[in-house]
Amino acid sequence: MKMLINVPETVVADALRGIAAAHPELTVDVENRLVVRRDAPVEGRVALVSGGGSGHEPLHSGFVGPGMLAAACPGEVFTSPVPDQMVRAAAAVDSGRGVLFVVKNYTGDVLNFDMAAELAEDEGIQVAKVLVDDDVAVRDSLYTAGRRGTGATLFVEKIAGAAAEEGAPLERVEAIGRQVNASSRSFGVALSSVTTPAKGGPSFDLPAGELELGIGIHGEPGRERRPMMTSGELADLAVDAVLEDLPPGGPVLVLVNGMGATPLLELYGFTAEVHRVLGERGVPVARTLTGNYVTSLDMAGCSVTLCRADEELLRLWDAPVSTPALRWGR
Amino acid sequence: MKMLINVPETVVADALRGIAAAHPELTVDVENRLVVRRDAPVEGRVALVSGGGSGHEPLHSGFVGPGMLAAACPGEVFTSPVPDQMVRAAAAVDSGRGVLFVVKNYTGDVLNFDMAAELAEDEGIQVAKVLVDDDVAVRDSLYTAGRRGTGATLFVEKIAGAAAEEGAPLERVEAIGRQVNASSRSFGVALSSVTTPAKGGPSFDLPAGELELGIGIHGEPGRERRPMMTSGELADLAVDAVLEDLPPGGPVLVLVNGMGATPLLELYGFTAEVHRVLGERGVPVARTLTGNYVTSLDMAGCSVTLCRADEELLRLWDAPVSTPALRWGR
Repeated sequence: MKMLINVPETVVADALRGIAAAHPELTVDVENRLVVRRDAPVEGRVALVSGGGSGHEPLHSGFVGPGMLAAACPGEVFTSPVPDQMVRAAAAVDSGRGVLFVVKNYTGDVLNFDMAAELAEDEGIQVAKVLVDDDVAVRDSLYTAGRRGTGATLFVEKIAGAAAEEGAPLERVEAIGRQVNASSRSFGVALSSVTTPAKGGPSFDLPAGELELGIGIHGEPGRERRPMMTSGELADLAVDAVLEDLPPGGPVLVLVNGMGATPLLELYGFTAEVHRVLGERGVPVARTLTGNYVTSLDMAGCSVTLCRADEELLRLWDAPVSTPALRWGR
Repeated sequence: MKMLINVPETVVADALRGIAAAHPELTVDVENRLVVRRDAPVEGRVALVSGGGSGHEPLHSGFVGPGMLAAACPGEVFTSPVPDQMVRAAAAVDSGRGVLFVVKNYTGDVLNFDMAAELAEDEGIQVAKVLVDDDVAVRDSLYTAGRRGTGATLFVEKIAGAAAEEGAPLERVEAIGRQVNASSRSFGVALSSVTTPAKGGPSFDLPAGELELGIGIHGEPGRERRPMMTSGELADLAVDAVLEDLPPGGPVLVLVNGMGATPLLELYGFTAEVHRVLGERGVPVARTLTGNYVTSLDMAGCSVTLCRADEELLRLWDAPVSTPALRWGR
């Protein structure tokens, strides 16, 4: 696989220089690997900090800005950031009202954010955590004990970020984040493998004419392989897998997420099928977001995330947000 | 190549149903293949209409909304829409102040928009046209006499769309569109071939370890093939090719555009290199946009578009826009 890079060793630093170039509204510390909203710390506001391995862009750096994250800590490709980054981020954004860590459930991330929380508290920063574990495909996986954190991360960061922006206290922002995670489930499908810069070739073999159901966002194995299916068949399978485990409730937020290399034309076609299935199952849709948001480098494929949204979550979802990748309201 | 589709014949209709599902703020006519802003016609405002073959999403349907296009007409994949679509679009959005057709320079598009302009004028709709032909890579190509229209389409649609939104008359909106095109140049690079749904396999062969310089957005041949280069080497080559032909002037708008399958992590790294080269050449940068905007289905690669922006163009670029793919201001 050919990549648009200099050398594998500088991929993350090069991208951070590019984020700095394209987004003067963010403060980018290339050396310490931090992306911070320029006006941080924002007085009287709880600050959200997230991070994880690189290769899932726009997650998380593309979600930094008013109404969402105060800071993101990118690790090496598919590798957790280190506690030092997270502590530095917390110190940069804490206004005195505390910091919420949004942590995807991968062993390295969990350990490092736990350690960072202790270190930050030693420095007098109040820290709470929300663990995101929305992927229904498998229990325990290559890098995870329990369920993996995938698409729901976007919902948690947007909705808890809106609560923080409105001035909610840390306990409330944390509770909202936990509610969003508890109300969300995801299922992903791979049509191709993923190529990491370090390896330079496919991470796994997926024969022509087969797809992998229940894939993770690092090429971790899913539930099973099957012969190629149509978009409609895949929507039936993915939506049913999500609904089987989704708590009952009202309307849903829908994320139809591309893994990176699947054309938007196809993602919109898949969105139509997801809506068809939800209609057939009697699940009302409140909002739909289609695009490449929680990606896996050059992997072809998609995931579906549903979140049961009560009126308060829906109001916070609709609240203004201004980040590189999500921007609406004012 | 595996695709997330039902059957090739319904790819465009399926995507339109998905756009309708995800974007209730747009009116989507699946049967007649039109995407229209819901509040059209907007009284007292000139309306922009564009369109072209599908497979370049978010171009053009993702650019429909306040501050940009009033309507988009998607054709089959890599195939011009028909005059009937364009006339229908013009009739749906004309407030009496006229319609501007934004046409990428491909033979089919040019012929069909010309015919549509005549038919619309027969119906009493005043029509002006802006032809986009920004690609410096080749003169004449598989589907084009003269230069191809690529990344600058986004600049023309955004900036002329802002002028229309402010209430400028048709002649002025047309003049702004022409100025943007005349001030813009692009150069693209392919790291892989493209797969169309109808063909199901690569449109051309690009050996491992080679890239194609000066590629178009339909897999049309470029200038030459070369052994794989680094991101930095490619930025030198692409930016210099653009600057060689760019009119002199002040600061530039920069579009670092992904062709579809290149990860955002790599596009940001390339953005850093583009900025480095512009700095070395003494070209000040006013604004930078990085992402997948004018794509070629599942092709890996990127393009660079520069536009010399005077204060008025810059003001119009910064003006509010609210579309699925570009959204800022209020």
